[in-house]
Amino acid sequence: MKNCKGGICAPKGFLASGISSGIKKKGLDLALIYSRLPATTAALFTKNKIKASPNIITMGRLSKNKKTSAILINSGNANCLTGKRGLSDAKKLTSVAAKLLGINKNYVLCASTGVIGKRLPLHKIEKALPTLVKKLSAQGSKYASRAIMTTDNIRKELSVIFNTGGYNIKIGAIAKGAGMISPHLATMLCFISTDANISYAALKSALKEATEETFNRITVDGQMSTNDMVVAQANGLAGNFIITHGTNDFKIFKMALSFVLEHLAKLIVKDGEGATKFIEITVKNARTYKDACNIARNIANSPLVKTAIYGEDPNFGRILSAAGASSGFFVPEKLKLYIQGLAIFREGSACNLGMLKSKLNKEEVNIALDLGIGKASYKLWTTDLTEKYIRINSAYTS
Amino acid sequence: MKNCKGGICAPKGFLASGISSGIKKKGLDLALIYSRLPATTAALFTKNKIKASPNIITMGRLSKNKKTSAILINSGNANCLTGKRGLSDAKKLTSVAAKLLGINKNYVLCASTGVIGKRLPLHKIEKALPTLVKKLSAQGSKYASRAIMTTDNIRKELSVIFNTGGYNIKIGAIAKGAGMISPHLATMLCFISTDANISYAALKSALKEATEETFNRITVDGQMSTNDMVVAQANGLAGNFIITHGTNDFKIFKMALSFVLEHLAKLIVKDGEGATKFIEITVKNARTYKDACNIARNIANSPLVKTAIYGEDPNFGRILSAAGASSGFFVPEKLKLYIQGLAIFREGSACNLGMLKSKLNKEEVNIALDLGIGKASYKLWTTDLTEKYIRINSAYTS
Repeated sequence: MKNCKGGICAPKGFLASGISSGIKKKGLDLALIYSRLPATTAALFTKNKIKASPNIITMGRLSKNKKTSAILINSGNANCLTGKRGLSDAKKLTSVAAKLLGINKNYVLCASTGVIGKRLPLHKIEKALPTLVKKLSAQGSKYASRAIMTTDNIRKELSVIFNTGGYNIKIGAIAKGAGMISPHLATMLCFISTDANISYAALKSALKEATEETFNRITVDGQMSTNDMVVAQANGLAGNFIITHGTNDFKIFKMALSFVLEHLAKLIVKDGEGATKFIEITVKNARTYKDACNIARNIANSPLVKTAIYGEDPNFGRILSAAGASSGFFVPEKLKLYIQGLAIFREGSACNLGMLKSKLNKEEVNIALDLGIGKASYKLWTTDLTEKYIRINSAYTS
Repeated sequence: MKNCKGGICAPKGFLASGISSGIKKKGLDLALIYSRLPATTAALFTKNKIKASPNIITMGRLSKNKKTSAILINSGNANCLTGKRGLSDAKKLTSVAAKLLGINKNYVLCASTGVIGKRLPLHKIEKALPTLVKKLSAQGSKYASRAIMTTDNIRKELSVIFNTGGYNIKIGAIAKGAGMISPHLATMLCFISTDANISYAALKSALKEATEETFNRITVDGQMSTNDMVVAQANGLAGNFIITHGTNDFKIFKMALSFVLEHLAKLIVKDGEGATKFIEITVKNARTYKDACNIARNIANSPLVKTAIYGEDPNFGRILSAAGASSGFFVPEKLKLYIQGLAIFREGSACNLGMLKSKLNKEEVNIALDLGIGKASYKLWTTDLTEKYIRINSAYTS
């Protein structure tokens, strides 16, 4: 497997575009992804009980048919908590796009991201759709990936090529996300294209497993969004024999997909609102996977841990205090804490604290907590918490 | 019932002192509370699995006898994650204090607050103890309440007098807390004195009920501490007939205790690290108490809600998104959201948003979320999240 050019358009038969429609004051805000051949489509959605209109529409369409051709995405407005009009707005826009593309409206999915509680500027978007369709091209990934950004500073795209059974298969993906990041069996927006010929069941399994190991392992601020969505479209144009679940080809496909999603997940963390540090937290030798997960998440979402790391302050007690406040089981006397590879706490007492301070002066911080009572482990990635996060989020809508 | 002077020393027979022993670079850091008569003592402790040495010592002593005479408290060092030496340090200091007071060491409790993971400066404190004991006086509450402060900006004390069965009874209390505030069946440090003659069972019940309604309803940053402790001492010097559980006198006592603790709990929130706003969140008409509690806590601990309120940004979607991400059950279509008394969201859509902005320019912000599906409700108090919280917590130990 190696990286290749093209982003979401790298796989055969995928086109994309991104333009400015006026939803945002400036910059690109409307994107379209299109597969020339209807593509087998699997998706995961936010578990938030408040679901945005595009999520409801997209979930409904995918519950009826597993083939789709296009995804219409806007930034600058989440179209969430907008009632029945929010739903009809999303339906209307996908219908117009379908007509322009010459396909059935049920083959068009939609996604939105931005401020919650405001209606979409329907007429502006409608007026922009013909241009959006006209601009579809195999070079469109960079525009589409820019048009889905909100507070993001860096574009998030990747494409890879790998060979299985004598066929070259490509996977491309774009994502957005910087704040309100704490996915639960889903993520912020991510769109994945592949020209693999793969069964729906295999695509769905691969997507679920890869998401669990990547997007579900990141948190910026512990805030699950209303609009999270990850969609994978596979159009089969690579011409390979169909990949089914459990085969060797499936394993190779899933590994490549995980590679792509891990790259994008880490980019979301590195682009976390106001972040200056990338933090990897591993909890190991826990009694259960759930214990390890709960402890790791409590550490990752602790504002006290995050601010200490921001300040390069060797305040390790906050890490163990956050672990102790979680629902995960452990025995304090058996804990071993490592920061930047250095043992900081073991046999009930601190050690090496004098050496720690100088090691915190790095962009990447590694925290490993060994519970010493089992075999389960859990790893996740997060950011520090800075004044800039406060500034970004204290004046978002106004 | 009315307020009276004296703080923790208002009830008959209670003395207190607070001095500087050199644990902190400057300011008072060592306090003593003393009852001339051994007092019936009930206490609640943090549920954090990491427990500080003084908590372990105090829990152990109270499990053996329900009468105590004194509490030795230091700030500037939590004596937590300090291993066996942390326990022997706490034992040693209470023994020295007991000897100076001429009482059994098991009658001396202890509490600490400050940075986690460092040993107490034992010799400095030992050297300061004779002065601390010598300074005990009925005017000592203001010194003791100052000596237990860490990042607190305001002293937290209150005393009240009320009459039951022809006897005047007083309750006094001091507390500390500004960050790492999210108590669970306990709180940050709070010490309560009363001259009521009350049974242990009644005192414990009153303390539990009052704490559940007050200290357990506050959160600054969702971070449960390792050192939380609330201790109530009742020495009986008011001379009233003994108050037992379930009687009318019990109800009056509990009401007075709740009044005192609510005052201190709100002071902790108002003194929240970096806070500029006091926020009251009520979730009502929930299906269960637990649902209401989970939803209210998820809103209160959301950095996105807190930063929006700091910025006086009418971004109500974050409140509903935080509710939706909680484990509490609700039906989105039935939600009604009120901010500052103004209906902001009902029947699935936003309303009155134009009027909201001008109402957010207040020090107190009221959020009420009506789920419309049951009868349970839950109220809690929290703060906004500001750049100052980050500054305070990014350089705490170093």
